[in-house]
Amino acid sequence: MSTLLIHSLKGLAIGHARRINGKSMADLPMLESGAFILIENGRIKKTGPASECPERADRVIDGTGRYLLPAWVDSHTHLVFAGSREREFVDRIRGLSYQEIAARGGGILNSAARLRGMAEDALYQDALERLEEVTASGTGAIEIKSGYGLSTEAELKILRVIRRLKEDSQIPIRATFLGAHSVPTEYKENREAYIRLIEEEMLPRIQAEGLADYMDVFCEKVAFSVEETERLIEAGYKAGLKPKIHVNQFYAMGGIPMACRRKAVSVDHLEVINEADIEALQQSETIATLLPTAPFFLNDPYPEARRMLDADIPVALATDFNPGSTPGGRMSFVLSLACIKMRMLPAEAINAATINGAAALEWDAELGSLHTGKWANMILTKKIPSIDYIPYRFGRDQIERVFVKGEM
Amino acid sequence: MSTLLIHSLKGLAIGHARRINGKSMADLPMLESGAFILIENGRIKKTGPASECPERADRVIDGTGRYLLPAWVDSHTHLVFAGSREREFVDRIRGLSYQEIAARGGGILNSAARLRGMAEDALYQDALERLEEVTASGTGAIEIKSGYGLSTEAELKILRVIRRLKEDSQIPIRATFLGAHSVPTEYKENREAYIRLIEEEMLPRIQAEGLADYMDVFCEKVAFSVEETERLIEAGYKAGLKPKIHVNQFYAMGGIPMACRRKAVSVDHLEVINEADIEALQQSETIATLLPTAPFFLNDPYPEARRMLDADIPVALATDFNPGSTPGGRMSFVLSLACIKMRMLPAEAINAATINGAAALEWDAELGSLHTGKWANMILTKKIPSIDYIPYRFGRDQIERVFVKGEM
Repeated sequence: MSTLLIHSLKGLAIGHARRINGKSMADLPMLESGAFILIENGRIKKTGPASECPERADRVIDGTGRYLLPAWVDSHTHLVFAGSREREFVDRIRGLSYQEIAARGGGILNSAARLRGMAEDALYQDALERLEEVTASGTGAIEIKSGYGLSTEAELKILRVIRRLKEDSQIPIRATFLGAHSVPTEYKENREAYIRLIEEEMLPRIQAEGLADYMDVFCEKVAFSVEETERLIEAGYKAGLKPKIHVNQFYAMGGIPMACRRKAVSVDHLEVINEADIEALQQSETIATLLPTAPFFLNDPYPEARRMLDADIPVALATDFNPGSTPGGRMSFVLSLACIKMRMLPAEAINAATINGAAALEWDAELGSLHTGKWANMILTKKIPSIDYIPYRFGRDQIERVFVKGEM
Repeated sequence: MSTLLIHSLKGLAIGHARRINGKSMADLPMLESGAFILIENGRIKKTGPASECPERADRVIDGTGRYLLPAWVDSHTHLVFAGSREREFVDRIRGLSYQEIAARGGGILNSAARLRGMAEDALYQDALERLEEVTASGTGAIEIKSGYGLSTEAELKILRVIRRLKEDSQIPIRATFLGAHSVPTEYKENREAYIRLIEEEMLPRIQAEGLADYMDVFCEKVAFSVEETERLIEAGYKAGLKPKIHVNQFYAMGGIPMACRRKAVSVDHLEVINEADIEALQQSETIATLLPTAPFFLNDPYPEARRMLDADIPVALATDFNPGSTPGGRMSFVLSLACIKMRMLPAEAINAATINGAAALEWDAELGSLHTGKWANMILTKKIPSIDYIPYRFGRDQIERVFVKGEM
């Protein structure tokens, strides 16, 4: 048995026990003025005011002037990729659009071509380095998607890399199969054959090897139609995978109502949204996961977070870390964008990046807040004047230490 | 005598010897494929290709896979301030404008009230910490303004803190007097008296103590008119201070043509610009210093950098580090915004943040590029695929080591 005590905290952001809806997200339950937390064997044993603080523990940390928060849960990333795409970045500065670059064989297909030629071990090493980088920035649980393979072997290669990361990494990881990220070049004239490859070859092998937790589809004009997406969701369910769907990044095509009807755990992106989408989200359990670094980098409109919050929809925030549209994996910058560009309040952004991020991975019973019994995945801040300071100070993480299951 | 050799560099961005105009800024002179640099007593002694690399030095660093760049020159900051303003940040999220917050006694006047109550030593300690933070992020020379005092004693207090920083800091610092940052509350009904205070009391004392290198005025509807600004520029010249002017942040009022006519070293901000401003800049030696983190944070339009570059105007980039409109001092993020939001090419942004930043402090003979004889203030990057990767990877500094006068 190993215990850790952090005492005399300026603030202990306990947060909500489970997922919360938009209208409640401005509330962030907090113990102030000297609160403590006691960790036992990696889980939270007890929290309380200074007056109830235990006298001893195996390890003791003085939290004076500091806040303790649940670690970020980054519920949407493409962390396993091959190489960077700064050439396309410069092409965009010179005037090409993301869609034009994609049409020229750049974009996702560029990443796929590079990844197919990269050895599994090199891919693993690169991804592990990125994972350590984001963990140091306060990410305490993460989702990672495949989708830069687009062939059975390459998709399985990515999912095996994610499995190795799950085994070796400090932080909990969920794997999502995104074979339907784009139609690969060799199937451009035969979309049906690629969809059948996913249904008949990829999904059975993924199921047999137990390689994924979720099924994702890029539902978009440049990728898969609403009908194709629904068919693939159905195939995912048959393979034991619940859906989490890329949708409404560039166009509102009806994907959100369909995904809500098919009980998607989350719909992700939502830069463009209409009233039917809002109503569908209100009538479902589906979480709206917003990825503001993508429109930041692509100069697209930001998701209308306030409209969703005011409609009482549960909102999560994630990085979308990937080499094309978001070469950045820092959750604290996502929080800053949420506040500066989407007018979320700091408390709303923190809830979205913790408990609702956990809920978007069906992990809110284990992670995402500092309630007794949950894993002690936590951020101890530097000395800061208030919790609002975190998104305000946009260029820097305000982190002194990150704990994963109670360990630094 | 102490020598330092960095060899086998993937790229050595020598840069331009002196300031350069906009149309030439896409060119960044670079030695590739194994270049070396030799430093002697803090200054650059020699650079060249692998074939000419010296055999020994007191200290030797292997630069394989890495780039060496001139350190950033941040030519516009308000680094000495008291406290943070995250409450106003939250007020803005709730719907108040920057101008409305200023009208309520927030903004600059809020910072001034806090600063007046803060001891010089505490002010110094806070500023030193920030200075070390930005140096670690690659800033190798910096300008710091007063302007949060707005009384003779408080302005002198800031300038004395800057003088102490100059003495103690590793990096070269220029001090700018910005008593004309805002009209303080006690002079709201008597602007003339405050201007005369600057002319007759502040400037003579600053001159007598040798506390400033430049004179700045916030030429803006909420601050000082074009006529008042010109009068203050004249007073600055009489006290031996050349002008560097805050102008065109919110409105184009004719401040740029006046400042160019009065031979301002730089005009800073320029979120709003018209054809007369462009022509005045073309016909002057004045540098256009852009501060994109301010409109990023305030949700204002970004400066039209391409228009200025295409008009062959010399452009510099700086952070505007301050607690109200830019609580961030990372130059690499400024470069990312320059590329993503203002469509500057990475090479243009690097030139703007190095040699033209140095020129905006009249330091381009000493700093801002890696030519023989200059101070060895340099950034050694991590292993990165190209120089374009620096602004592309927006969330992270790509820095392995920072050198100031050849020392780490």
